[in-house]
Amino acid sequence: MPAGRPNVLFIMTDQMRADCMSGVGHPVVRTPHLDHLASEGVLFRRAYVQSAVCGPSRMCFYTGRYPHANRSPWNEVPLPADEKTMGHYFGEAGYRAALCGKTHYTPDPFGDPGTQPEQGIRRVALAGLETWELNESRGEGWLAHLRSKGYGEDVIADPFAVEIPADAARTGHADHAGHAGRDHSAYPTRFKREDSDTAFMTDRAMAFMDDAGDSPWFLHLSYFKPHLPIVAPYPYNGLYDPADSPAPNRSPEELERPHPFHVPFRIERGGVAYDDEEVWRQRRATYYGLITEIDDHLGRLFGFMKDRGLWEDTLIVFTSDHGEYVGDHWMFEKELFYDEAYNVPFIVRDPRSSADATRGRTMDEFVESLDVLPTCLEVCGLGGADGTGGAGGADELGGPGGAGEPGMPPALQGRSLVPLLRGERPADWRREVFADWDFRFYWTPKKLGISPEKCRGWMVRDGRFKYWYFNGMPDVLFDLERDPGELRNVAGDPRYAEAVRDLRVRLMDWRMSNEDVSRVAWTYARRPGFGRDPFTA
Amino acid sequence: MPAGRPNVLFIMTDQMRADCMSGVGHPVVRTPHLDHLASEGVLFRRAYVQSAVCGPSRMCFYTGRYPHANRSPWNEVPLPADEKTMGHYFGEAGYRAALCGKTHYTPDPFGDPGTQPEQGIRRVALAGLETWELNESRGEGWLAHLRSKGYGEDVIADPFAVEIPADAARTGHADHAGHAGRDHSAYPTRFKREDSDTAFMTDRAMAFMDDAGDSPWFLHLSYFKPHLPIVAPYPYNGLYDPADSPAPNRSPEELERPHPFHVPFRIERGGVAYDDEEVWRQRRATYYGLITEIDDHLGRLFGFMKDRGLWEDTLIVFTSDHGEYVGDHWMFEKELFYDEAYNVPFIVRDPRSSADATRGRTMDEFVESLDVLPTCLEVCGLGGADGTGGAGGADELGGPGGAGEPGMPPALQGRSLVPLLRGERPADWRREVFADWDFRFYWTPKKLGISPEKCRGWMVRDGRFKYWYFNGMPDVLFDLERDPGELRNVAGDPRYAEAVRDLRVRLMDWRMSNEDVSRVAWTYARRPGFGRDPFTA
Repeated sequence: MPAGRPNVLFIMTDQMRADCMSGVGHPVVRTPHLDHLASEGVLFRRAYVQSAVCGPSRMCFYTGRYPHANRSPWNEVPLPADEKTMGHYFGEAGYRAALCGKTHYTPDPFGDPGTQPEQGIRRVALAGLETWELNESRGEGWLAHLRSKGYGEDVIADPFAVEIPADAARTGHADHAGHAGRDHSAYPTRFKREDSDTAFMTDRAMAFMDDAGDSPWFLHLSYFKPHLPIVAPYPYNGLYDPADSPAPNRSPEELERPHPFHVPFRIERGGVAYDDEEVWRQRRATYYGLITEIDDHLGRLFGFMKDRGLWEDTLIVFTSDHGEYVGDHWMFEKELFYDEAYNVPFIVRDPRSSADATRGRTMDEFVESLDVLPTCLEVCGLGGADGTGGAGGADELGGPGGAGEPGMPPALQGRSLVPLLRGERPADWRREVFADWDFRFYWTPKKLGISPEKCRGWMVRDGRFKYWYFNGMPDVLFDLERDPGELRNVAGDPRYAEAVRDLRVRLMDWRMSNEDVSRVAWTYARRPGFGRDPFTA
Repeated sequence: MPAGRPNVLFIMTDQMRADCMSGVGHPVVRTPHLDHLASEGVLFRRAYVQSAVCGPSRMCFYTGRYPHANRSPWNEVPLPADEKTMGHYFGEAGYRAALCGKTHYTPDPFGDPGTQPEQGIRRVALAGLETWELNESRGEGWLAHLRSKGYGEDVIADPFAVEIPADAARTGHADHAGHAGRDHSAYPTRFKREDSDTAFMTDRAMAFMDDAGDSPWFLHLSYFKPHLPIVAPYPYNGLYDPADSPAPNRSPEELERPHPFHVPFRIERGGVAYDDEEVWRQRRATYYGLITEIDDHLGRLFGFMKDRGLWEDTLIVFTSDHGEYVGDHWMFEKELFYDEAYNVPFIVRDPRSSADATRGRTMDEFVESLDVLPTCLEVCGLGGADGTGGAGGADELGGPGGAGEPGMPPALQGRSLVPLLRGERPADWRREVFADWDFRFYWTPKKLGISPEKCRGWMVRDGRFKYWYFNGMPDVLFDLERDPGELRNVAGDPRYAEAVRDLRVRLMDWRMSNEDVSRVAWTYARRPGFGRDPFTA
């Protein structure tokens, strides 16, 4: 590879759970190519997203900043124009930074979506990424491809509809209110496997790599699946037997003594459908099929990269924007703060020899979505101890020497994983992960009479506990040692009062330490003192 | 006045304590004109700033938003270009919005300091205000005035230096390390009373009112005094007898069992000078003199306004950006979270007949600096229940219907005082005030080995308690019923454990409810629901 300039392939799936890989012991789903990637890199089992909603989780990955800092804590909330993303950092460093797939990015109507040179931001396209191929779910390019392959306009208009045989025993349940009539998970889509969105995006990723040639590139390959609607092309719709689907992680107690949010949210988000055993068995089976479909195409992609001599030149990060309950906790989708929604698959393959010592290792250090950007920058020599400080010059908010790690742009709030990839464990590695959820846009708070500005929840999870804090709502605490499935809320148990106190303080310290202090850090880097030092004068 | 379009005179002093007015019973200082203003308006005794540092406190007043939301939590940290200020709101509403004096505003180097039409922001000058006369402390206009009056270049170069008689008994102490040699508070400045910065700014304010003519105007008259250096022109330097200065509010216990911050901060900020009785007596006397100097000029200004027929056409708000210890708690300046630094004078005179019922009243409802902007907007018919929603159109962040009060720009985090001015007390009026302090720029955290991102403190004060929370530092709790002077930290007393728990939760709820959600609120106002209502379907 060009010295210190590996390419970056940042692969994201949408709504894929951390446990759905054969390499971590899932009893059903097969992911041989992801397992292969992990065998040559590091698999982090405790990787957590900072939001389990597509848009804000992605904005955390893209900006390297918490939702309250990048100020886009829900879907369709515009990312402020002064937020720098992966695309900007890599673009400014001379990489060809491109998007192939989904971002859930909403541009700032108060910012100029074109060039904003006065802010030091090159906003080439979506979130600073060149739009090589856009597919938020039904992308123009994919639909054009379907049309070119002779599919009818009925398929183009509604590609995830399935043909239901006239003699079908069931017609399925609605995914949730917003997707009525779309859940017939047993039946195949009308498009063939080679024409699926996953297949098409993979082809387009390969075309990008050929197009990029010798220029260093950063490619965000972002699949829409296994996000609902949970329907797959043949043979993935029937790849797994519903009889093999593991039973949902849930207990009667969750419905007998529920958190006030639980019941309305499971109604709002379609969880009630999963009370039916046939539904959860089939949906899980098809969900696993969609994951194996992605894995198959990653196999194609990895083979292509090896053929092209790109495998040893490319940093690969594989993850998902959040998970999916598929019936766990009586829920569908990803609301509330359970691990099934926040713990995501996370594999890093650093091609450099410095990472040889850890290839094939599984690690339990806590990872946050914010870590992807600093890791990519450091591996590419653009920040951190391994870097030259190339990302962000002296006159930009992205300048070195700020609040984050040495040599990293001060706006970044995560940590580079490079020391872990080298086999070192920093003594001060984080001991917990945090999440942040703005739920004002749902119907549940309206039903409960919660005013919009109070619709915010914080979560902290360490090795022992998971704690949810809501403004004006009951606390939730799980003792993960005794209750790894998060089935029993012990927040009201006086034996846990000290734990609740401690976790609240950690939430406060987290918030205090992670304000949006880009401009503070920028100022501090230039003027670290005020007046004369009175202690040495 | 033009129907619904009163002028606004927003007067701010710098570093003036809430207790330094004769109308609130101060034993020494005389402020007859402020007392007159209060007799025709409402005096709020429990008005608190959200930061006791000039720049961030002012940015709260100007933006109507907490420091963590407007992201300018310390001096010289640029106010992000997308923050709207009083100047922008009033300018867009057709007012001539101007500055006469100090702002401590730092423009955003990442934003265009000129017009930014794409952000809906008209950035005329400093913080959106037309710069009628700028005086951050030694303004060009004032210095030119001194020159035109024949003062020598030695005075121009150092206007706050005093002539020390050859037979002076004392040569004074340094204010603090940054102002060595400037504290000779007993001696008069070399400029005469009619040429002081306070006199000049008052003259310029009157000139502005004449210049503005019949156009509705918003004038921010912002005096630099009684900010240090504590020196005054004759006769104000000797107006009060040091023998009459009330003793500082402090106890030996504060130094015997100090908070880890207390001793280094009192060294860094010059508090040790006040251990000397002659120093605190003289400095207090001169400080009071500077306040009476301002009051005298306000008397001139109010007389001018009455002569010009402006008195009944103008909303007047009088306050300060923060207080000053002048020896209380063994401190100088305004660091830490004591009431002497955070409680400020606050008088509102609403000229409308709707406020007649409360003229001359003193109120104990808690007021925050954030309340000034919504109050001004509502009195001028530009927001709130009394307004027409004129501030902020449908396509701006400042549009109506967001997170704040009905009809107010959603970015605003304070409350309009108009109901109180009408004599109504909203049932949900706030029961506490909050403050936020980023202290990374000081030397004390360096001495204590606190990393920059942990240099943040939060304060909550209600009717009973004052609580300080620092990341990784001991708690501070004062029981204000038993200890109104905040002399005895009871945070470690187990009898107060429940109070500490409650106050921490209130800090968390405050933070959760007051994120910077401008864009969230903007989005929500346009799309208050997500999908279809599952509870009515």
